[in-house]
Amino acid sequence: MSTRIEHDLLGDRAVPADAYWGVHTLRAVENFPITGQTIASYGDLIIALAYIKKAAALANRDLGLLDARRTQAIVDACDELVDGKLHEQFVVDVIQGGAGTSTNMNANEVIANRALEILGHGKGEYDKLHPNEHVNMSQSTNDVYPTALRLATYWGVLRLQRTMFVLREAFAAKAEEFKNVLKMGRTQLQDAVPMTLGQEFQTYAVMLGEDEQRLSEARALMLEINLGATAIGTGITAHPDYARLVCLHLSELTGLKLLTAPNLIEATQDCGAFVQLSGVLKRVAVKLSKTCNDLRLLSSGPRAGIGDINLPARQAGSSIMPGKVNPVIPEVVNQVAFEVIGNDMTITMAAEGGQLQLNAFEPVIAYSMFRSVRHLANACSTLTEHCVKGITANEAKLRADVLNSIGLVTALNPIIGYAAATAVAAEAHATGGSVYDIVLERGLMQRAQLDEALQPEALTQPRWLS
Amino acid sequence: MSTRIEHDLLGDRAVPADAYWGVHTLRAVENFPITGQTIASYGDLIIALAYIKKAAALANRDLGLLDARRTQAIVDACDELVDGKLHEQFVVDVIQGGAGTSTNMNANEVIANRALEILGHGKGEYDKLHPNEHVNMSQSTNDVYPTALRLATYWGVLRLQRTMFVLREAFAAKAEEFKNVLKMGRTQLQDAVPMTLGQEFQTYAVMLGEDEQRLSEARALMLEINLGATAIGTGITAHPDYARLVCLHLSELTGLKLLTAPNLIEATQDCGAFVQLSGVLKRVAVKLSKTCNDLRLLSSGPRAGIGDINLPARQAGSSIMPGKVNPVIPEVVNQVAFEVIGNDMTITMAAEGGQLQLNAFEPVIAYSMFRSVRHLANACSTLTEHCVKGITANEAKLRADVLNSIGLVTALNPIIGYAAATAVAAEAHATGGSVYDIVLERGLMQRAQLDEALQPEALTQPRWLS
Amino acid sequence: MSTRIEHDLLGDRAVPADAYWGVHTLRAVENFPITGQTIASYGDLIIALAYIKKAAALANRDLGLLDARRTQAIVDACDELVDGKLHEQFVVDVIQGGAGTSTNMNANEVIANRALEILGHGKGEYDKLHPNEHVNMSQSTNDVYPTALRLATYWGVLRLQRTMFVLREAFAAKAEEFKNVLKMGRTQLQDAVPMTLGQEFQTYAVMLGEDEQRLSEARALMLEINLGATAIGTGITAHPDYARLVCLHLSELTGLKLLTAPNLIEATQDCGAFVQLSGVLKRVAVKLSKTCNDLRLLSSGPRAGIGDINLPARQAGSSIMPGKVNPVIPEVVNQVAFEVIGNDMTITMAAEGGQLQLNAFEPVIAYSMFRSVRHLANACSTLTEHCVKGITANEAKLRADVLNSIGLVTALNPIIGYAAATAVAAEAHATGGSVYDIVLERGLMQRAQLDEALQPEALTQPRWLS
Amino acid sequence: MSTRIEHDLLGDRAVPADAYWGVHTLRAVENFPITGQTIASYGDLIIALAYIKKAAALANRDLGLLDARRTQAIVDACDELVDGKLHEQFVVDVIQGGAGTSTNMNANEVIANRALEILGHGKGEYDKLHPNEHVNMSQSTNDVYPTALRLATYWGVLRLQRTMFVLREAFAAKAEEFKNVLKMGRTQLQDAVPMTLGQEFQTYAVMLGEDEQRLSEARALMLEINLGATAIGTGITAHPDYARLVCLHLSELTGLKLLTAPNLIEATQDCGAFVQLSGVLKRVAVKLSKTCNDLRLLSSGPRAGIGDINLPARQAGSSIMPGKVNPVIPEVVNQVAFEVIGNDMTITMAAEGGQLQLNAFEPVIAYSMFRSVRHLANACSTLTEHCVKGITANEAKLRADVLNSIGLVTALNPIIGYAAATAVAAEAHATGGSVYDIVLERGLMQRAQLDEALQPEALTQPRWLS
Repeated sequence: MSTRIEHDLLGDRAVPADAYWGVHTLRAVENFPITGQTIASYGDLIIALAYIKKAAALANRDLGLLDARRTQAIVDACDELVDGKLHEQFVVDVIQGGAGTSTNMNANEVIANRALEILGHGKGEYDKLHPNEHVNMSQSTNDVYPTALRLATYWGVLRLQRTMFVLREAFAAKAEEFKNVLKMGRTQLQDAVPMTLGQEFQTYAVMLGEDEQRLSEARALMLEINLGATAIGTGITAHPDYARLVCLHLSELTGLKLLTAPNLIEATQDCGAFVQLSGVLKRVAVKLSKTCNDLRLLSSGPRAGIGDINLPARQAGSSIMPGKVNPVIPEVVNQVAFEVIGNDMTITMAAEGGQLQLNAFEPVIAYSMFRSVRHLANACSTLTEHCVKGITANEAKLRADVLNSIGLVTALNPIIGYAAATAVAAEAHATGGSVYDIVLERGLMQRAQLDEALQPEALTQPRWLS
Repeated sequence: MSTRIEHDLLGDRAVPADAYWGVHTLRAVENFPITGQTIASYGDLIIALAYIKKAAALANRDLGLLDARRTQAIVDACDELVDGKLHEQFVVDVIQGGAGTSTNMNANEVIANRALEILGHGKGEYDKLHPNEHVNMSQSTNDVYPTALRLATYWGVLRLQRTMFVLREAFAAKAEEFKNVLKMGRTQLQDAVPMTLGQEFQTYAVMLGEDEQRLSEARALMLEINLGATAIGTGITAHPDYARLVCLHLSELTGLKLLTAPNLIEATQDCGAFVQLSGVLKRVAVKLSKTCNDLRLLSSGPRAGIGDINLPARQAGSSIMPGKVNPVIPEVVNQVAFEVIGNDMTITMAAEGGQLQLNAFEPVIAYSMFRSVRHLANACSTLTEHCVKGITANEAKLRADVLNSIGLVTALNPIIGYAAATAVAAEAHATGGSVYDIVLERGLMQRAQLDEALQPEALTQPRWLS
Repeated sequence: MSTRIEHDLLGDRAVPADAYWGVHTLRAVENFPITGQTIASYGDLIIALAYIKKAAALANRDLGLLDARRTQAIVDACDELVDGKLHEQFVVDVIQGGAGTSTNMNANEVIANRALEILGHGKGEYDKLHPNEHVNMSQSTNDVYPTALRLATYWGVLRLQRTMFVLREAFAAKAEEFKNVLKMGRTQLQDAVPMTLGQEFQTYAVMLGEDEQRLSEARALMLEINLGATAIGTGITAHPDYARLVCLHLSELTGLKLLTAPNLIEATQDCGAFVQLSGVLKRVAVKLSKTCNDLRLLSSGPRAGIGDINLPARQAGSSIMPGKVNPVIPEVVNQVAFEVIGNDMTITMAAEGGQLQLNAFEPVIAYSMFRSVRHLANACSTLTEHCVKGITANEAKLRADVLNSIGLVTALNPIIGYAAATAVAAEAHATGGSVYDIVLERGLMQRAQLDEALQPEALTQPRWLS
Repeated sequence: MSTRIEHDLLGDRAVPADAYWGVHTLRAVENFPITGQTIASYGDLIIALAYIKKAAALANRDLGLLDARRTQAIVDACDELVDGKLHEQFVVDVIQGGAGTSTNMNANEVIANRALEILGHGKGEYDKLHPNEHVNMSQSTNDVYPTALRLATYWGVLRLQRTMFVLREAFAAKAEEFKNVLKMGRTQLQDAVPMTLGQEFQTYAVMLGEDEQRLSEARALMLEINLGATAIGTGITAHPDYARLVCLHLSELTGLKLLTAPNLIEATQDCGAFVQLSGVLKRVAVKLSKTCNDLRLLSSGPRAGIGDINLPARQAGSSIMPGKVNPVIPEVVNQVAFEVIGNDMTITMAAEGGQLQLNAFEPVIAYSMFRSVRHLANACSTLTEHCVKGITANEAKLRADVLNSIGLVTALNPIIGYAAATAVAAEAHATGGSVYDIVLERGLMQRAQLDEALQPEALTQPRWLS
């Protein structure tokens, strides 16, 4: 294999001649053989780094610190990354020591070597254009890396919210479809009082809507960046105008309304926004899991379960039980939810472990956050397409449950009085009879009046009968 | 012991004649002998219940459902609870089954029996004024209990925020006091570049300020209540105007701008707001823990540690090591933070476990939330008074660290150039010498110029020297 | 209030004249106003401290370091604590900084002052018998406190195991009672194949039995103590024979086979045994929660749920729904399980936060561990007495479910063949008919043969029919 | 693309003609587009499935249920999988609904199609040899999948333990190397009493040894399998001798002493052994994290930190701070530890979510467990090779710390008495002087006597001087 020699603090090392990455990346690959998954699997992160390096080059050019030729080469190289090229050159492991330095250096090296090619030089001719001196100019890992995480997370959450919106629409459509399907509501798994299946499904839509709002609030926190902070937030070695300029360029490039954090020292060490966002992702996971628990419960059966609804069959459920169909889609969503809750714990510990002017554990925060966001989005999509849209109701059974229920008597309280209602309930319990029949048998109400009192619209909203 | 006989679904039971609580409370005490801690230990919860029962009575009166005499008796009884009386009558365990029913019934019974006394009747004469029929009129545990939790949590968080504000002021005062104390910043526990101790302490103040904002946002979610939902949110048995009226009365009584949730079915089963708030409390805990980790680290020593600062001595540290003083206040804050993070996990699981139209596990959510809020507030207070206010700096040592540091050379990069800076750093490493001396020995800068370059204001903010 | 003056490192302070605790305790009370709960609420911890102080006094006497008179006074004072006296004098908060120093000093002071009284002196006359010099002789908080936690935890777990055993017996008795009750087994909440209700309940008994074994293993780790380690495990200031002697005395006093840890430096800083035990408690919680989830699910209804079994009614379930009964006992057990899982997270973070030669966060480990152990024991007891023992089966419904099930056809596979079985299943699905009837209608089997094939003993264990 | 048609419960589907997987796998790929990571990334799981399918075929042959020709073809196909062939055919996502059914069906289809080729048939000619009828004979996902997870986990933990052993040896070698290096021990980050650096490093070795023991105990639980349970543990459709025979064959094939669980119904639904093992992995993570926290702390500096030891430089630490070297290896280990603790939470929730006769969430348990085990092993390896082996001590600084310490006076207590020791400590505090000098100045001891008293062997173990 053809190689070239590169040099760093620790000495000389040969890297493959055709590699765009260099000696710093090589060291990191050797140091962190942890997951086998490289940062190439997070395209958003690479694109974010490319935008940042481009914005920094433009700001440095504006300040007269970087000449036009090098600026243009860096800009062109960054544009290629934004277009999805060379991502396979990002070979460091997603879990890495060094607070993201290896990710930043991997970017610096790939961009420098690609820019060198654009300028007509060979890879590794760093005296012409240097990964640190030029690509990383006015920057530090400690401001580049958190900013890149914020951009990538912002985009990921936006994508998640789009899938949640589609899921919400699917639930709302079912709510409309089922708006006249009367059923028993249940509290503590015990029969309570009537509602409509539409009301039950509308709840899931409302929950998603609230979660989307919370996500939007937490996502907005990602727009506060710390470029210009350099090493610890004091901005040492950076031009006083740099922070403002790089924020302007990055905002223009990404179309986002970015802000420079008012206190860069705090912003450089703080992971609070990630903890906040992960906490909201946990909330989303909790709600989605609860919703899927309900779907599995409501579709239990087909004969010895609750059987309110039917989920669409998606695959054979068993090799030895003919005809068995399982709620596999909600089950996979539950599991993603459990993963997200675990990821939040990882993020919590990593955030708590930060010390003094930096949090060295941001890579595992990124790893956990990116998986949570991506898996949740995929879970919402499969839930929408492969489950919710195909749900059907067992209308006759549901209506029979209501007519057969003891809880029905609650609705008659204002008409027949609490004492009579209690007596009816007691007889129903003892004999297994229906409240409907007993009320008629006892002559407490006329059938027409009773039928009217048990109209869905009467049972399922506040009213006052006297 | 003198007793009276009360009756419920399961039969007759004797309760102590002087007890304001009744048979439902008795059953609960027998069923839930878990922690030994009663809900009496959460005064805010009792006061919230009292306000709710009072608001409900007033709304029922407005609707012509409750007569003036009974209304006034209930109102008077509730006022006594708000004034802190009879709290010892709330004897059910903080962890309980039944989704809070026992807490609600405990309140209904105490208020009914006190109201009976006010009306001149004996305790237990429920035909005159009934815990369920009158005190609980138009209500269900499923709307009363979550609303009470929200009010109590709201007040608790407000109190927490006040202690955080005082802590923030203390950190800000220290930041001002230390604004000219130059020191080495550290990343990944390795010497980085200079900053001021004031900048370091200002960071802690800024973090707290951000947390207070996040808490305010999450606290606002507590203002959305579900009174009027009754059993499952359909408002069965409630007057159509009740929800509006009770919200108006409760807002007036508490001085809070309460809102009735737009979808009461969703609001009745959803614990999302608690998960959100607990997630923010976890964030607060993470930041406080990180801050206390820093304080312990910075004050390590006195001789074989980092020794940047001194914490005030609060107690003898050891029985066998004379003169040892330990950072006991930050240590206790760390532990509260760990508890809060654990509580968040409990709340997460309880929220995920909700099924269909209700979450039966709200009592453990309340138990965990109340402890988190209260312990965090106490932790902030002791940290302010017993630690932060008394912190002193080892100024001479800190300045010497900077002058002795190799990282200092970073600041000279723009003046002497990266190559010369690297050579200076290398010599300093090899010989143990100081950058300051080596720069002078090599004649790279004049002492006056060097002293000027190493002024705190020059080292600790962006600048551009050419 | 009458006071006496005591002195410590920080100066003089007045303590109440009748207090057995002294200045060190006073400082701690002021420093740690966190939970309001004192260590007096953990009697086991106080008794453990008393045994340790007594064993230390005897060992010091054996070594000629403590005279007979003082030894006897300390022994007598410790015996009183073991008898449950003076526990109210342990007034420091359960969550405290200082790695347990305040708890140890609280014990030293109470024992010293009581011993002084026994010797005929007044409280505070420490020149006669000193809390540190004599009661704490050859000891450090760093060996006394972890040893006390281990003893207290050992006893608590033993008590928990006894309640688990009783619960296991209750499940086993139900398994025997239900051994002939045929029912449908369910996987993924979908009807699967037949089993007996006895088999289902036996599972819960078996799970508990396994958990008890795991607890016994983890409990055994508590027997390794580090007395003799003194400050950091090097045993500085302790006589070389002290560790052996104090272990002997403590073993004799407690009746436990205690071991001195082979590496005292490791033992002094390590919290691994607590993390291990808490992990097992989490496992117990997971299983108990799953079991209670099942009980709630199986008893759902009474008419629109699964309704396999009935839980005994324990209290009225609702104020507005007449006759509603809820599964309140399993619900409270679920909540304790969630708390235990949260406590495990607290313990995990506290253990991870230990630094160098000591873990400063053992108090919150103790607080969390003690609550987990005690609440789990209480939960098991109420589950046994108030729920499991009174469970009844809906036998006719369960048998009808089996006969009505499609899954039944799985059992006929070996007789009528997979193809015919599939056809039967398909017809049953389409028509809603029963497998039993369809098999007979199609003449695939004779009624006698079919009845025999569907005997519980044939359906619910491996067999081979050809 | 050439295709073949396959059929399942839901109808016909075209699969690529050259795919070894079939229609069931196709459905799963469509249903679970979650992580993008396939089960092919867990080679151990595929090998475990192959062993199980082979053992089942041999047991079925022994029972006369499977003919010799099909048996041999299945055996040959399985042997190829064990040899690492065809793993790329395992294309279902690691997170999947269906309780592992898709993984089992993926294996059944690949083995069937490869066996068909071996027999000279085309892929998809299932009438000759059927994925369900023959490859899955006497089996269910519900016994195959948990058994495969157990085998794969067993092997993974064994591999982890080997890397822990090597790490332990590295720590022990350093302990030997540093056995005479005197230093200050620290509790609560404050200077305590002397010890040797060898004692400090020996502690890390001892901790690992204990963790290895706990892992061995938890690993042994993996040997209890539930093959023969079929659908829910009743063994329906399995020959009564099958469970015994398949366990024998599988034991022989794997060389492991496998046991059939005594209660197959319990074993089929229970995830307790995974929760237990994950709890132990969490313990390992906690200890490793604590150890790495210590290494980072002890190597902090180089000039404004604690600086007891030096970690080998592994990569340049910063682009803007010349010469900065960071503790990147311990940092990556910390992050793996945080991930493992998060994974444990995921496993806990998945285990708790199991219902009735099965836990549907085992795939996410497997996903989390496999990552924990693999990443921990990789972390231990990099920690050994790239960090621990190259650690050096700053001996002179460490010895100076001891001589300069106030804590040294603790060791002189038995010689000069507590009162004199306290006075020495006070003077040292006030003047900044050394205990050594002050003791000599005050004439409390002779230099020779003092030097002898401060010998490492005297300071760092129990002794008694009178």
